[in-house]
Amino acid sequence: MGLLAGLRVVEGSAFVAAPLGGLTLAQLGADVIRFDTIGGGLDYQRWPVTDEGVSLYWAGLNKGKRSIALNLSRPEGRELATALITAPGDDAGVFLSNFPAQGWLADERLRQQRADLVYLNIIGNPDGSTAVDYTVNASSGIATATGPVGSLLPVNHALPAWDIATGLNAAIGLLAAERHRRTTGEGQFISLSLADVAFTMVANLGFLAQAQLTHENRPPLGNDMYGAFGRDFATKDGRRVMVVAISLNQWHTLVRATGIEEHLPQIERAFQADFRKEEDRYRARDAIAALMKPWFEARTLDEVRKALDEHGVCWGPYQTFTQLLDDDWRASAENPVFGNVIHPGIGSLLTPTSPLHFADGFDDAPGTAPLLGTHTDEVLEEVLGLSPAEVGRLHDDGLVASAGASTS
Amino acid sequence: MGLLAGLRVVEGSAFVAAPLGGLTLAQLGADVIRFDTIGGGLDYQRWPVTDEGVSLYWAGLNKGKRSIALNLSRPEGRELATALITAPGDDAGVFLSNFPAQGWLADERLRQQRADLVYLNIIGNPDGSTAVDYTVNASSGIATATGPVGSLLPVNHALPAWDIATGLNAAIGLLAAERHRRTTGEGQFISLSLADVAFTMVANLGFLAQAQLTHENRPPLGNDMYGAFGRDFATKDGRRVMVVAISLNQWHTLVRATGIEEHLPQIERAFQADFRKEEDRYRARDAIAALMKPWFEARTLDEVRKALDEHGVCWGPYQTFTQLLDDDWRASAENPVFGNVIHPGIGSLLTPTSPLHFADGFDDAPGTAPLLGTHTDEVLEEVLGLSPAEVGRLHDDGLVASAGASTS
Repeated sequence: MGLLAGLRVVEGSAFVAAPLGGLTLAQLGADVIRFDTIGGGLDYQRWPVTDEGVSLYWAGLNKGKRSIALNLSRPEGRELATALITAPGDDAGVFLSNFPAQGWLADERLRQQRADLVYLNIIGNPDGSTAVDYTVNASSGIATATGPVGSLLPVNHALPAWDIATGLNAAIGLLAAERHRRTTGEGQFISLSLADVAFTMVANLGFLAQAQLTHENRPPLGNDMYGAFGRDFATKDGRRVMVVAISLNQWHTLVRATGIEEHLPQIERAFQADFRKEEDRYRARDAIAALMKPWFEARTLDEVRKALDEHGVCWGPYQTFTQLLDDDWRASAENPVFGNVIHPGIGSLLTPTSPLHFADGFDDAPGTAPLLGTHTDEVLEEVLGLSPAEVGRLHDDGLVASAGASTS
Repeated sequence: MGLLAGLRVVEGSAFVAAPLGGLTLAQLGADVIRFDTIGGGLDYQRWPVTDEGVSLYWAGLNKGKRSIALNLSRPEGRELATALITAPGDDAGVFLSNFPAQGWLADERLRQQRADLVYLNIIGNPDGSTAVDYTVNASSGIATATGPVGSLLPVNHALPAWDIATGLNAAIGLLAAERHRRTTGEGQFISLSLADVAFTMVANLGFLAQAQLTHENRPPLGNDMYGAFGRDFATKDGRRVMVVAISLNQWHTLVRATGIEEHLPQIERAFQADFRKEEDRYRARDAIAALMKPWFEARTLDEVRKALDEHGVCWGPYQTFTQLLDDDWRASAENPVFGNVIHPGIGSLLTPTSPLHFADGFDDAPGTAPLLGTHTDEVLEEVLGLSPAEVGRLHDDGLVASAGASTS
């Protein structure tokens, strides 16, 4: 039983942001019903896929949801989806989508069926034009602040961070609007643009304010942290680690662990610096790093780990995804947030639940993604109140499909 | 009047994640009261700063909150903070913090004062050990999938994406738990670890599943998109653009805009590919890009923009932060999500509000961060019910400070 048990969210979605918004609510116990066109939407076969062509991406982002497959190219199929979106109930009438809010999905059309609908629509640009994580990130400034020192070429990161932030914002918008409806009875239409999420965030973080006041752009710093001491080092056995000292305590533990204490005063004097101040550690970071480097180069990762952990240093090894899986307890079934779960059509995978950990035991076991249409009959009967005979006629008419039919 | 008007959240925080969680709720209309120690916490002077040393980072992440400055090194100051956190009221008793949940901030201690407290505590690693965005990202696998093709060195990105995802998850956890309390009367202690946010997310996105099933790591792809066609190109005037074709429609518009239509069939045959499939476009991406490259190289950014926009291509120019500010209407006061606002001690800045846009007019004007202690007296009187004389005695005793006193 999750914390949001009882709340029903209907999702019409594809790709990362909207499905992640639904996943986030499903992992907290909401009943999230994703509808798709028969055969699957645009993201149903998105890479990475298994050798058999099953999308690991789809499986990852749709865990714990119910799936209903409808023929959305016919008016009767769209009417079924509309009935689902606008079904009655205090805990229902919550709709998350990144499909265009036009035609049958126009807010005014849906609101005719349910006036207090909470409808959140994810769009690309605020004017409704197309944008995706990659194009928004290119324009955000972040790619020009990423990469090697002195680089003139922008660097994309592999994480769809704006999709993630947009999906999480969508969950926030739905919960906030549903709270408001509970108090006032009023529904909401909320639009959320990927570009707005990205550009408001670089403003919140001070990147834009810095550019506006100083007319300077933060340059790429390699793997250094900005404004404090944080840097990567190579170990004797060819691994790399990232160490960070933001607080004074973190700085002292790092200095002690790497044994550079006695040489620091000379560096401080040479740079007219006071290393109790994080900005001075940042300013003199190349010299500090040069002092520390031999310590890392003389030790294997295991030796580095032991020494840094003993001193309580804030650090982490660089890991590939396989190293994260093989070597790190935090991404293993030892960590309650993960479990080994068998996914239909895929097999056993280390599978996460919500990162929100409830002391009172609301942590659900990790779920799996449904096969497309697994819950078609169940949802039609339970939510729309159709009889098995009526559902049978919809099947015969090609308006709906179940898992077997749609995954052939 | 925001959507969350009436809800009161107390925040005891520093750095990005926890303040961002509070900011997110404040921008939706919640009354977020951040308490700090007199003189400011660890993030009060965090870079970037103005020439006068005012932190643009702090100003960005604490907009629209109320600030109270307390002497937290004395038991009486900690008692005032405890009273604030556990103050009565159906819409109160919500606490967000990334301070250690120990001593006076231990859940059991606070819950003695208010049994139905909703308390969300952000931590580094799930075992309580230290981790920050940079160290978690290093271990997440993402840095090894970022950077030039063939690179053996990990690349950090400049965006604190895990802090962002953690802060947004914190807002979700608080709203979900407050909803649950409204229904059941029960409070919650929720812990949220930065590492869990990161590692569950790389699992949700399929990175871990791919590594687990294939024993291979996704390699760095330069600026290419994975699994579809997406790449950056240089323009005649030395700018760069990112173009993306995930859907078939996006692909067709890109092909038409860049005029490569007639040469594509030969490439398709050479690669035994069917470019209606996104995975085939991904497989042959270097050849496709080679066909397109001359088109971009022969045009200035303005010419590229005109042609791509006419065809409805999904693309974006790479921009520095200053270019984003100077050239892009999406980061300007033309976009309702931004406004030019004067910040105390800083001056006029382009300032964002929530990216969640409410059709019914819940969009608040962008706020500014308070000076430290701006609302000390007001909060003590309004929330704790102290008289002006009692507040005066707290000042005389050095237990609290107002904006003038604490920003000297």
